[in-house]
Amino acid sequence: MVYVTRREVFSASHRLHNPQLSEEENEELFDKCNNYYGHGHNYVLEVVVAGNPDPKTGYVIDLKILKKIIVENVIRKVDHKHLNFDVDFLKGINPTAENIAIGIWEQLDGKITSGKLHSIKLYETENNYVEYFGDKK
Amino acid sequence: MVYVTRREVFSASHRLHNPQLSEEENEELFDKCNNYYGHGHNYVLEVVVAGNPDPKTGYVIDLKILKKIIVENVIRKVDHKHLNFDVDFLKGINPTAENIAIGIWEQLDGKITSGKLHSIKLYETENNYVEYFGDKK
Amino acid sequence: MVYVTRREVFSASHRLHNPQLSEEENEELFDKCNNYYGHGHNYVLEVVVAGNPDPKTGYVIDLKILKKIIVENVIRKVDHKHLNFDVDFLKGINPTAENIAIGIWEQLDGKITSGKLHSIKLYETENNYVEYFGDKK
Amino acid sequence: MVYVTRREVFSASHRLHNPQLSEEENEELFDKCNNYYGHGHNYVLEVVVAGNPDPKTGYVIDLKILKKIIVENVIRKVDHKHLNFDVDFLKGINPTAENIAIGIWEQLDGKITSGKLHSIKLYETENNYVEYFGDKK
Amino acid sequence: MVYVTRREVFSASHRLHNPQLSEEENEELFDKCNNYYGHGHNYVLEVVVAGNPDPKTGYVIDLKILKKIIVENVIRKVDHKHLNFDVDFLKGINPTAENIAIGIWEQLDGKITSGKLHSIKLYETENNYVEYFGDKK
Amino acid sequence: MVYVTRREVFSASHRLHNPQLSEEENEELFDKCNNYYGHGHNYVLEVVVAGNPDPKTGYVIDLKILKKIIVENVIRKVDHKHLNFDVDFLKGINPTAENIAIGIWEQLDGKITSGKLHSIKLYETENNYVEYFGDKK
Repeated sequence: MVYVTRREVFSASHRLHNPQLSEEENEELFDKCNNYYGHGHNYVLEVVVAGNPDPKTGYVIDLKILKKIIVENVIRKVDHKHLNFDVDFLKGINPTAENIAIGIWEQLDGKITSGKLHSIKLYETENNYVEYFGDKK
Repeated sequence: MVYVTRREVFSASHRLHNPQLSEEENEELFDKCNNYYGHGHNYVLEVVVAGNPDPKTGYVIDLKILKKIIVENVIRKVDHKHLNFDVDFLKGINPTAENIAIGIWEQLDGKITSGKLHSIKLYETENNYVEYFGDKK
Repeated sequence: MVYVTRREVFSASHRLHNPQLSEEENEELFDKCNNYYGHGHNYVLEVVVAGNPDPKTGYVIDLKILKKIIVENVIRKVDHKHLNFDVDFLKGINPTAENIAIGIWEQLDGKITSGKLHSIKLYETENNYVEYFGDKK
Repeated sequence: MVYVTRREVFSASHRLHNPQLSEEENEELFDKCNNYYGHGHNYVLEVVVAGNPDPKTGYVIDLKILKKIIVENVIRKVDHKHLNFDVDFLKGINPTAENIAIGIWEQLDGKITSGKLHSIKLYETENNYVEYFGDKK
Repeated sequence: MVYVTRREVFSASHRLHNPQLSEEENEELFDKCNNYYGHGHNYVLEVVVAGNPDPKTGYVIDLKILKKIIVENVIRKVDHKHLNFDVDFLKGINPTAENIAIGIWEQLDGKITSGKLHSIKLYETENNYVEYFGDKK
Repeated sequence: MVYVTRREVFSASHRLHNPQLSEEENEELFDKCNNYYGHGHNYVLEVVVAGNPDPKTGYVIDLKILKKIIVENVIRKVDHKHLNFDVDFLKGINPTAENIAIGIWEQLDGKITSGKLHSIKLYETENNYVEYFGDKK
């Protein structure tokens, strides 16, 4: 098995806010991330696909194709968007990095045409990132 | 002369939009940057101060002090904010990287306690950045 | 399970030296790292916490809290210090990257308030780093 | 167990091409990577060795020794070379990142003098990388 | 004046070789860079345009347009190419970083639709880069 | 004119301290940088040489030669050293980034065999750096 990674970047806004909680609770839990008009990040996304290289091509998956799958299923939905308002697969979900990564996994699961989806890594800032492996680990 | 740089990071939303233009013109000029709910970035700010090192300290300016000046005059106003709505010094200004950099220069001009403000560099993404030297160049 | 990482940086001195060995052996084993007055690094520390996101917050652990735990238990003890002389949890230990990482694990173990400590990654330079998972792997 | 990583960089040319396929198939599969005269990359190689720190040194493996092993067995063979023509261990192999990583594993397997070889990570560009763990995973 | 930078990356091969010199001289001058089949790099190109922000847009130049100008005039000619054989504007020129940067300047000079071309920065590796300002400095 | 840069890294300790001042003044001025046993950094040094490319080679200066000049005159003196005690050219000088950069300039001035020394950039951390151009600016 070889693990192949493709990195993509998107710029988006979000606001951390749970509408089932009071303003005070939201303020206490999410602090400056609860700013009414939101704030934003250059998110860095890494998608890992695992498999055996095809003897004909030497590829687990052609990275041009993986890129296209990521762009069509994720990037065009989230890039230059507000994650709370503009993104179908995050509707009703508090867009923490954890929840965005799970959402992205679900967008890509079943769409990988060669090898299988192994993990999603998502950097929110240079100091904060999350990693998700589906239900495996 | 030695040029001393302090780097700070802030996360903010913005929308590129000129209210004096029609929706069609805004769409054409600003494209996906004109998204109604905005989008965001991890902005990287570099502030350069020029001067001769003080013989007593060996510093042009103590970087702990420069950091404090930048945080008080800029970072606390823009970090985790929406640049179109939340920031006094950007009111009525289309928040392109160029205009944000000029606005930050004006916030810091006259506030540097040792040496003099030389330039502002502002990264919007890893591929796009601007630099401003006041009226000097 | 989602794996959440917080990155912190500290600047410290160290000297690689085993007092139970002769000067010649220290010189041979540790070479320039054995320099009498020591040398130093900007260490980059990544702390990974694993858990399920809390449905109320969407967080495995609030990264502001994780940051505070790391700063209180690690960073304030090692930042701007000499690791051989100034750090209680490294007393009598040769401060190789391996041993520092194990020491940091022990400082954080049992202190994580939500999720559980998964791993410590420690960069000594841009070319050298170590990773430690406790006794699990 | 502690996992110790050494990073090295090499600059090389390659061409993706399978001589058993027609020109049309090569063109379709490998596109611009099939350019007749080749193209190139600054490859970033990370070699991970796992083991318990030696109580005498605090090292899993002395990184100066690991560096020397990597340089002698890999870097001097691939740096400033054309991977299709100049490299004995890649003869007859289509030099995709997957195949190069497997080839590097085989060069290093059995050569690590302390601890054991755990994985090879190889960056082809800042957006594309692969990871290989031998036959373990 | 504000200085606006766009960063692009391209992957290419080259060989340093002066056909007017003997093999011995080429070997001595260019050493491993003279490898017969060439070697390669991920070149990082930064193009700087200087100007006053347009009051209507807040842009010196729309970076989507600058990107398009760079891709059309430079990137599509050099990306995934061998700089000694495939690139019209480098024909007969020894492709050192210095000469590539001058060649790129000449490709872009007169093509910038807003503001004026200020400088070209070209990274050959993470440790080596050159900068060129036309005939100005 | 083309400006050519070579980047080198060194790991060193230092302590900010002015022996002509009282302990209280040192404490107040240099705070945690005044720690008795010192602390350390991975310093990143960039040396810029300006000149016209030699028509025979296409080089302003062969970067292998520039590297050798920097290593011999600077790196071997400061790498894995304590800047206050081990470095001849910093004897009696408070090793702030400003003063180290000026000291490095003086070590290299007159030693560049092709082109002329243009500037020294020295990163102390990822957030703090200084730049020195000799007496020119």
